This record gives sequence, C-alpha cells and structure tokens, in this order.
Amino acid sequence: MHSQAKLRGIFTPNIVPLDSRGEIHEKELRRYVDWLIAKGIHGLYPNGSTGEFTRFTAEERVRIMEIICDQVNGRVPVLAGAAEANVKETIRACETYYELGAAAVAIVAPYYFKLSPRAVYAYFKEIADNTPIDVTLYNIPLFASPIDVPTVQRLADECPKVIGIKDSSGDIPHMIRMIRAVRPQRPDFSFLTGWDAALMPLLLVGCDGGTNATSGVAPELMLKLYELTLAERLDEARELQYDIVELFDALILSAEFPDGFRTAVRLRGFETGVGRQPLSEDQQTELGRLADKLQCLLATHGFTDEPASGCGISGAANGAPEVSRIVEAVVGELRRRGMA
Amino acid sequence: MHSQAKLRGIFTPNIVPLDSRGEIHEKELRRYVDWLIAKGIHGLYPNGSTGEFTRFTAEERVRIMEIICDQVNGRVPVLAGAAEANVKETIRACETYYELGAAAVAIVAPYYFKLSPRAVYAYFKEIADNTPIDVTLYNIPLFASPIDVPTVQRLADECPKVIGIKDSSGDIPHMIRMIRAVRPQRPDFSFLTGWDAALMPLLLVGCDGGTNATSGVAPELMLKLYELTLAERLDEARELQYDIVELFDALILSAEFPDGFRTAVRLRGFETGVGRQPLSEDQQTELGRLADKLQCLLATHGFTDEPASGCGISGAANGAPEVSRIVEAVVGELRRRGMA
Amino acid sequence: MHSQAKLRGIFTPNIVPLDSRGEIHEKELRRYVDWLIAKGIHGLYPNGSTGEFTRFTAEERVRIMEIICDQVNGRVPVLAGAAEANVKETIRACETYYELGAAAVAIVAPYYFKLSPRAVYAYFKEIADNTPIDVTLYNIPLFASPIDVPTVQRLADECPKVIGIKDSSGDIPHMIRMIRAVRPQRPDFSFLTGWDAALMPLLLVGCDGGTNATSGVAPELMLKLYELTLAERLDEARELQYDIVELFDALILSAEFPDGFRTAVRLRGFETGVGRQPLSEDQQTELGRLADKLQCLLATHGFTDEPASGCGISGAANGAPEVSRIVEAVVGELRRRGMA
Amino acid sequence: MHSQAKLRGIFTPNIVPLDSRGEIHEKELRRYVDWLIAKGIHGLYPNGSTGEFTRFTAEERVRIMEIICDQVNGRVPVLAGAAEANVKETIRACETYYELGAAAVAIVAPYYFKLSPRAVYAYFKEIADNTPIDVTLYNIPLFASPIDVPTVQRLADECPKVIGIKDSSGDIPHMIRMIRAVRPQRPDFSFLTGWDAALMPLLLVGCDGGTNATSGVAPELMLKLYELTLAERLDEARELQYDIVELFDALILSAEFPDGFRTAVRLRGFETGVGRQPLSEDQQTELGRLADKLQCLLATHGFTDEPASGCGISGAANGAPEVSRIVEAVVGELRRRGMA
Repeated sequence: MHSQAKLRGIFTPNIVPLDSRGEIHEKELRRYVDWLIAKGIHGLYPNGSTGEFTRFTAEERVRIMEIICDQVNGRVPVLAGAAEANVKETIRACETYYELGAAAVAIVAPYYFKLSPRAVYAYFKEIADNTPIDVTLYNIPLFASPIDVPTVQRLADECPKVIGIKDSSGDIPHMIRMIRAVRPQRPDFSFLTGWDAALMPLLLVGCDGGTNATSGVAPELMLKLYELTLAERLDEARELQYDIVELFDALILSAEFPDGFRTAVRLRGFETGVGRQPLSEDQQTELGRLADKLQCLLATHGFTDEPASGCGISGAANGAPEVSRIVEAVVGELRRRGMA
Repeated sequence: MHSQAKLRGIFTPNIVPLDSRGEIHEKELRRYVDWLIAKGIHGLYPNGSTGEFTRFTAEERVRIMEIICDQVNGRVPVLAGAAEANVKETIRACETYYELGAAAVAIVAPYYFKLSPRAVYAYFKEIADNTPIDVTLYNIPLFASPIDVPTVQRLADECPKVIGIKDSSGDIPHMIRMIRAVRPQRPDFSFLTGWDAALMPLLLVGCDGGTNATSGVAPELMLKLYELTLAERLDEARELQYDIVELFDALILSAEFPDGFRTAVRLRGFETGVGRQPLSEDQQTELGRLADKLQCLLATHGFTDEPASGCGISGAANGAPEVSRIVEAVVGELRRRGMA
Repeated sequence: MHSQAKLRGIFTPNIVPLDSRGEIHEKELRRYVDWLIAKGIHGLYPNGSTGEFTRFTAEERVRIMEIICDQVNGRVPVLAGAAEANVKETIRACETYYELGAAAVAIVAPYYFKLSPRAVYAYFKEIADNTPIDVTLYNIPLFASPIDVPTVQRLADECPKVIGIKDSSGDIPHMIRMIRAVRPQRPDFSFLTGWDAALMPLLLVGCDGGTNATSGVAPELMLKLYELTLAERLDEARELQYDIVELFDALILSAEFPDGFRTAVRLRGFETGVGRQPLSEDQQTELGRLADKLQCLLATHGFTDEPASGCGISGAANGAPEVSRIVEAVVGELRRRGMA
Repeated sequence: MHSQAKLRGIFTPNIVPLDSRGEIHEKELRRYVDWLIAKGIHGLYPNGSTGEFTRFTAEERVRIMEIICDQVNGRVPVLAGAAEANVKETIRACETYYELGAAAVAIVAPYYFKLSPRAVYAYFKEIADNTPIDVTLYNIPLFASPIDVPTVQRLADECPKVIGIKDSSGDIPHMIRMIRAVRPQRPDFSFLTGWDAALMPLLLVGCDGGTNATSGVAPELMLKLYELTLAERLDEARELQYDIVELFDALILSAEFPDGFRTAVRLRGFETGVGRQPLSEDQQTELGRLADKLQCLLATHGFTDEPASGCGISGAANGAPEVSRIVEAVVGELRRRGMA
C-alpha cells in the first residue's frame, strides 16, 4: 500500500515487545498492532525513536518491518523508519520497505556526528534521488543533526520523493516557518509533529497530524484530541491537551526514554518485556512507581482498573503539584543532557 | 490606576525614543504613547527588554516611568519593569512606580549570575513580601535566570501580591504546565506571553494576553490577531499569525535586538534616534536594508507607503524563501549566543 | 599608579564586605585590602564578578573604587571593573577610575542582551577610542556575550589602549588561539585567566597570570602555585593545582556564586556579612556546612584551626570521593543554568 | 597481544581508506598501518570517531579489525572501538576483538538517546561484568551521553576490567577531577585525551597519553610533542603545541569531520577515497582548498612538497590571522551544532 494520499492523522511510533530473552516478541507485536488498529489509529510508524531503532541490529529492523507489514496487511499506512549506517544502506532499506508495502519511509538526519545544514541537505538529496519509496524527513534536534527550514524548503522544491516532515522539536514558530516556506509550492507536503504535549496548538497552526508515542499507550485519548481539535471544539480539546501533557510528562520522564512507554503498554495488556538499555536499581524502582501512577491516570480515563494499592483521593487536584515539581526537575535534567 | 482586574490583552513593551544626543526624547515618547493608545493597545510595558532597561541608568528608568504614567494618565494600565541592582533597590522602584500609578510591576529574574530555582524563589519572595504594588514575574530564559514551573506555583501559592507571569520562552507545553499548576488555586493569576511568533496558539491553550514588541510597530496587526483568536475565527487568525511570524523574524533578527523595532517605529512616524549599543558598519547598512524590507511589509498591510525604491513584484510569494533563509541562519546564530 | 608595565601575576577579584545593614563595610574592606597585600598578592581587581558589581548601584561601585584606591595607595596595581549601563556611562567610569589612580580597567562584554561578535567589537572600539585609561577585555561567556578570537585580535590590532584580556572560559585551546593570534604583533598584551581550576596549565601554555577568586580566600596557595609553575617545579605545582581544584569547586558550587567565597573570607578573619542575593533556607544551611568543610580544607594547609566539631580522619583520601560526587552534580547544574 | 601494561603514549585513531566503490580499501589500510608503525606510533585505535564506526556496518567493523590486527601482528597494542547497537552485541564484539588479539576495547557511552549518569553506569557495568577483554571508557560529550566523574570513579572502583578512559571533552579541570578521584585507588588506570589541541597541558596535569587524530596525519609532530612534554622541554613543547592547534583546527573544521583528516592522509601518500557522508558542492570545493592549505602546513614542517600553486611568503605570520578568523567562525558553528 504505497502512499498516494497525503499523510494525515495520528500515527503510532510503536515500541517493540521483547520476550524473556530480549528478542523481538513476534506474537505480542502482532497482537499489539491489531489492538492499535482496532482502536482506530491512522497509521503505524515502526523503527522510530520510540521503536528504539538504534538498539536493534540491521537484520532485526528488517524483521520488525516484515512482521508489521504482514500483520497490518494494508489496513492502515505504515511509515517505516529507514535510517541505516550510511546512504547506501539506507537506500537499500528503502527498497526493502518499498517491497514490503510501506506507504513511505521516515529518515532521521544523521546522528552521532553533528552535521552542518549543507551536509544534511546532501545526505537527503542523495537518498531522495535514489529511492523507490516516498520519504518523510525526520527532525529531532535533541538526538540528531537538525534539519533547518531552508533545508526542508530546498528538499521540498527539488525532490518530489520527499513528501513530508516529522518534526519533534516542539517549537511552534519553527513549524509555522516550515509550513509557510513549503506549502505554497507543495500543498501535498505533510507536516507531522512528534511532540505530543503540543498536538492541539500544532494542529491549529496547520499541522496535518502527528506521530505520537502517547498514542501507543492511550490511542483513545490521542485520537479524541485530534478529532476535537479538527472539529474546533476548543474548550474540550484544551482540557484534554492539558491531561495529555501530564500523561506525556510522566511517560517521557521516567527512567530512560522510552521505558515509560514500554511500561505503560504493559498496563494496557501486552507483554512488553524489559528494554535493552540496562537500568540502575533505583531506575527500576522508579519504573515500578510509575506503573502505579500510570495505572491511576489510565483508570481516571476508564482504560484500566486502579492498582491494588489504590489511587488515593488525589486525581489531578492533588496530584498535579507533585507531578509538576517532578516533571520540572526532570525536564531540566533532560534539557541538560540534550545540551551536554 | 492600580490593578484591580486581571491583566489581559495586548501590552506594548515600548522602545524609548532618543534624541540626537542619545537622551530620552520626551516629546516623541509622549507622542508615541498617545499613538499607541489611539490604536487601541490594552496597556503599556515600559522598562522591559524592548525598552532596553539595562542600557538606561536607574535615574533614567524612573524618568521614563514618570513620563509614561503622566502621559497615559489612567487611560490604560501600565505594567512597569522594575528590576534593579538588588532586592532593596527593586523594592524602592516598586514603591516609586506604585506612587506613579502603575497597575503592576514586572520583574525579571536576576540576570548576569545564573541562579538556581531556590534562589530565584527567595528573590521574588522577599520582593513580594515587601512591595506595595502587584508583581508580575518575568521569565526570559534567553537573557536571565529561568523561573521554573514549581517556582511559579510556589510563589502563586504563597504570595497574593504575585498576580501573573510574563513568559518569553515561547515554549507552549511549558505554558500549559504553568497554567495547569497555578490556575485552579489562583484563577486571578494572569499568563502573558512575550513570544509574538506564537501568540495565537498560546491564546488558544489558555493565555490571557501578551506583551508583544511587534505591537509597538504594528498595533493594528497584533490587536487584530488577538481579536480574531478570541472570536475563534481560526483560519483568519492563522493567516495573520503567519504574516506576523515573518514580520517578527525580520524585526528581531536585524542588527541587534531591539534595533529592528527602533527602526520600524521610525517608519511609523516617530523620531526614535540611534540606539545606545554601538553597531558595526555592516550592521548599520543591514538596518538600512531592513528599513526598506519593513516598509514593504507594512505597506502590504496598508500602514505606510512603499519606499521610493519600490517593493518589486514580490510580496510573500517571492519574499518568503529569502527571508526564510535569512531568518533561519540568524535564528541559529541567536540560539548559539543564547547558549554560549 | 597607571599601568606602564604589562599586567602579570595574581590579581585578587575581591568580594566586598557588607555590614549588618547590607551596606559597604568600609573598615573591613580596608583591613581586607591590607591583608591581601601583606600576603603578597600582585594586584587587586574590584568590581568584578566576584565583587558582584551588578548588585551594587553605580554610586556604590565608585565608592568601592575610592576606598580601595585610597587604601592600596600605589602599593599594587588596581585593575578596576568599569562596566556600566552603556558606553557613555562606561567611559565616564573609566575617567573616574583613571583619576583615582587605577592601573587599568577591565570591561566585561555587554550582558543580558546576547550580542554578536560585530556588536561586541563596536562596543569595545568605541570605549577604547574614548578612554583615558588602559582597557582589559573581560570574557566570561557563562554570564556575558562572548568575545571571540577574531574580535580580540582586531581590537588588539586597532586599539593601543586595549592592553590585555581576562578570560574566564577555562578553555585552553581558546587561550592558545588568542595568544597565537595576538602576541606576535602585541608582545605587551596581557593574557590573564579567571579559571582557578586550570591556572597551572594555562600559565604553562603562555598566560601571564590570573585574576583568581580563590586568591581572595587563600592567597598563600594561589601565589605558591604561581611561583612553582613559573619555576617549572612541575610535580609540586601539579599536586597543588589538584588541591586547588578541590577548594575552588567547593567555593564555587556552594549556595550561589560568590557566597562560598564570602563565607570563606569570613573564616580568614573578616566580617564579610550576608550577601545581597537572598538565599533559600536550605541554601543557608548548605553554606553553614560549607563553612566547616572549608575550615577543614584551610586547616589542612595551616591557614586556620579545625572547626569545633573536628574534621574527622578524612582529608583528601576519604573526602575526595564525596566532594567529587557533589562537585560533579553541581557542576552539571551550573552548566545547565549557563545554557538554559 | 592482550594488555598487561598500562596504556600510554600516542594512539592513532585511524581513518579507513575507501576504494572507488566506497568499500574498505584493504591494501591501502594495510600500507597505512605499516606506515604509522614505522613512524613510531605507540598504538592504533580503529573504529573510533575518526574511524567513522557509525558509518560502517557491523560486519564491516569486524572486517576492519581483522585487517588491522592481522597487519599489526603484535607490533603495537590495538585499542579496538567496540560500541554496537546494544549490550549483547557490544559484548559479542568484545569477545571477537579479544580473539583477534586487541589489547583492549574502547566503548563510547550510548549515543542518539541521551542517557542519565545512572543508565550510563548500568550500561558499562553490565559490559564490564561480561567481557573477556579490558575496557576503556570513551567520553565524547559532543556526540554521546556524557560519562561524569562519579560514574568513572564508581566503575573504576567496582570493575577491574575497566582500565582507562579516553576523554575527548578537552576540559582540563574535568581531567584533573577524574585523575584525583580515581588514581589513588587505581594507579594502573589510564587517562588518555582525544583533544589534540590541548595534549601538552593535559600531559602536564597527569594524562598518560592521547588517542589523537592528528597523529594519523602527522605522526612525527604528535610524537615529538609527546616526547618534548615528557622531557619537560616546555618552551619547545609550547611552540609545537601552538602549531598543532593551527593544524588541528584546519583539519577538524573543514567540510564535515573527519573529511579533513581523510584529505590530509591522502597528502601523505595514501589513496583514502571519498568519505561515506555526501558533501555539498561547496564543501567539496572547500576540501580542495584545504588540501592546498594542509600541504603548505605539512611542507613547512618538511613532510611534503609545496603544492604546485605555491604557498606564498606567508607562514605563521601572514597565515595565522586568516586561519584564526576562519577557525573561530567555524568553531562557533561547530559548537552551535553540538548544542542545537
């Protein structure tokens, strides 16, 4: 099912369930895919950051795509993370995912080395000129070389195969600058955000959708936020966006990303296993406490039962200040890491 | 006219016109104040960053406030920038501005030294406990010690005199976290944004208004954006926000902030003089070119005539890519400076 | 005593003792100056960052200089911090300090606003063209606009009044680049470091000396390090530099800079009073614990008695790991603030 | 030849020559290894950042090690870069390189995701507990999660297999803090620097050597600097360090790292081929100009002939200011990228 229509809506950048040996848990992955589609998710995005593509081998990344494309079987578009060690390997991945039936690939800018805009352009240009499948740029400046507005514009102008961008910077004026620079010439170009905490305002300034990790945990909430916003039911959308900020903060700030998401998907009924990045003992404890917290948050919205230990009388009113303090402290820490 | 109602709407952080000797140009400042009020601006905010408070002496800052409070004469509320060398001097400024009739003061977190959240809290607490006038916190992490969410929340909880925050971070999830943490207990607390490039989405997630430098150049546009957004005329608001991003980028990125604004206010008919920060020769040339560019942007919206040299057939369609390239390059540069 | 010889050696950027009302404690300041000179310090540097120039009023800064120049009375050169609100005020301060007999002034690059290299150049050029007194540039990128190598080189080439730079970046290749770019044409140009933790290696790559806050607390140690290094007694110098890193880290990381230095000078026998930046209660407690820690460090080197509570069997062997952990955590925090 | 002695001296982090198809150029790699050993280099460090380990496949990384270990044949120790996608794959690489006869492995902290110190600790602990070969930590905060001092200390305390650290931060007080924290308990622990621009001062504060990319281009210079410094011939060492800063800056700042090194090794007589990261046209031109510049720098020191176009009368006197301006501009750019 190769893309013909513009990419729109909420795509889930799925985590990969692991079995007790730390290997891809194919059965649970298939079950998880079915569950997400049943919940109404508009597309899947395997081998993204949430999918920890850097922690799998090249062979495993292909295997993940095979399982997902097979299980999806054309029901929703698959946006396939295709970044590999170099241009040649990335193009090869594009070919493979094209044959597997992905709608498009998403390619993160080179990471580890921090490249200049000129080299980021040259990298995507060479890929776009040699790929059989449509390409979505993936800008995540916290982790990889940034893709700046002139580069996006130039690639959109020169490369018909480049059909969109996923931007995880969370910077709204940046999104406005991109849309303003590209949309007049390329109305088909898709702008997706990866920053769940600002989905509503980003949609309102013109985004076409999001690839949002929270949708892998609470697809009902993210889809509802998407629809309320499109329907311009602003008060309801705002309330829900506020709750999603709290949920997203709790998910993203626990232990190491994306372990909070892995833990939360387990609460929705899947054997997600233990992540591949070793954690310290106190981080494991922290993740245990997060599980209770998340279960209460999900229970509030009717997605699970309360944990055996109960959730207290709290709810948002009591819980918010504490969460807010934690969130702020850890956001500061994250920012520090991102800059160190 | 001390504040009784919540601070709302668009406040202009005004530049200070200078005469040929580099002194406060009282006559033009008075004329500028009248013009802004005639345009419908909801309030004034002297001695802010746009007002270059750090480049005036303590005596001059008081003089600026005297002129403005006298000229405003109660027609609109005045939010007075009151940061001085230390707590004692700042409290003295609060007393002076209270007597002059300011609605409230705005106090930036300590700068030069980068303080921890604990010391930022202690600083504002001591001021709030000893001031006769309401205090708005001013968070501008690019220039001063950041005021984090738990600090805002704690000050809002403990200090009735602290009645709002002006946040110039431009970070929307950060604004959501603050509102979420404070508004339930303090519905009177005012959230203002200083980031003109995201006014529309910030209003839509719950902000009460903005102190926006662009409103000193094109009050008509900023007020229109405010009203379209409040009326939920989203398509029109979005289009206007896009144009304002282009204007704001051109203003903020020319020479050194806030010289672009000083130049642009001159185009609206005021003798604004030469700023106090010396510029290199090429920056002065750059400012000349900016004047033409701004005049064309303002002419497009009917605020001035085209410059003698004409504006070309361009407009947004041709102009955008070039501006976009410049903007991006300079935004990168700004970011670098902010972090260096 | 205006400068005729190149600035060399260890200058003390002195804190300003405050009395019980928070005012300049003239008597203690004079006594402190005498003590520093008696210890052998090569010069004084009032109104620097350690001197908290931003927390005093313009009048107080002049008063501090009057007291110090009067008390020093030509015994050692005085390098006077002269940054004021704008170029005109800064030049006026230069004139005043020239008349008071300062050897030279030190001027930090503009702060609050983050300026581009071009504007930093224009700022110093205008000052250098209009000052009666020699000027030392002061580069402290953590707090103020950075002064880059080409700017230093250009100012050194064009301005005979610019006779040196104090660099507090702590970046050794940066220092090498500056010396390499400037020294061939300006052998008289002085390179001073403000980063006590790297004084030895910076002297070894060609620095002429330092303005080191630690010399206000333990002048004996800093002078000894200077002399061991110049004598190329490398093993002894290295050992001492290691101890000074521990001391410096403890001083700089407690509460808010420069409160650790204020506390430590009190341990050397001066009434330094309470700093002007309010501290939280836990920071005050932290400063109390620091006092014990510092007293033990100073006692180890024979500068004070042990505190009443004793110092334990520790010393470096036991103490180091704990200090190291604290230091690292807080260094991370500082870095975060510097970049936020 | 597994390590028994402490790692000391200058290790070359070698680039990998590529043939016209972009594949590993085995013959030139072997010839390059022989040349480096003939020049007197103390060890080799394949699959480091200069070796662009992220741009090769897992299979290619093993192949590179096979070629190098075979060609070295025990003449010098080989420090093998062994970072793979996850702990399991990394341990497998450790086993492979142990069997190939590497002296030790060097493992960079996890990259892409920015990990907290706790997770960085857990990562290395799990590797250290399961590896047959000695491990050198590799701290390069510009590219990967930072390894802070307490983490180094804890790993040194708990893991006998962890026998050293390569630090490319270039921060001298940081190096002092590490040595101070670790050396008393682990006198065998090796401290190597990857920051060529500060090799002399780092050796003087206690480093055991360096893994310096410049040694792959001008082994004669880096070895001479090492020996002059150890012999405490400080004036000569300082002069040479200055020249090496100029050379290093030119190498590191041209096009994208490590293309400057690839170009320079070609000037020493090896077919190094075209790097795997595509470059823009102007970057390719830039690299051409660099070649001339480098050839002149190398010619000055007698390593090659002047280019056909000549080198002008320049040398340091004329060349320095221009290089310095370029260097500064690009260093700023690099820093921006590192932080963006």
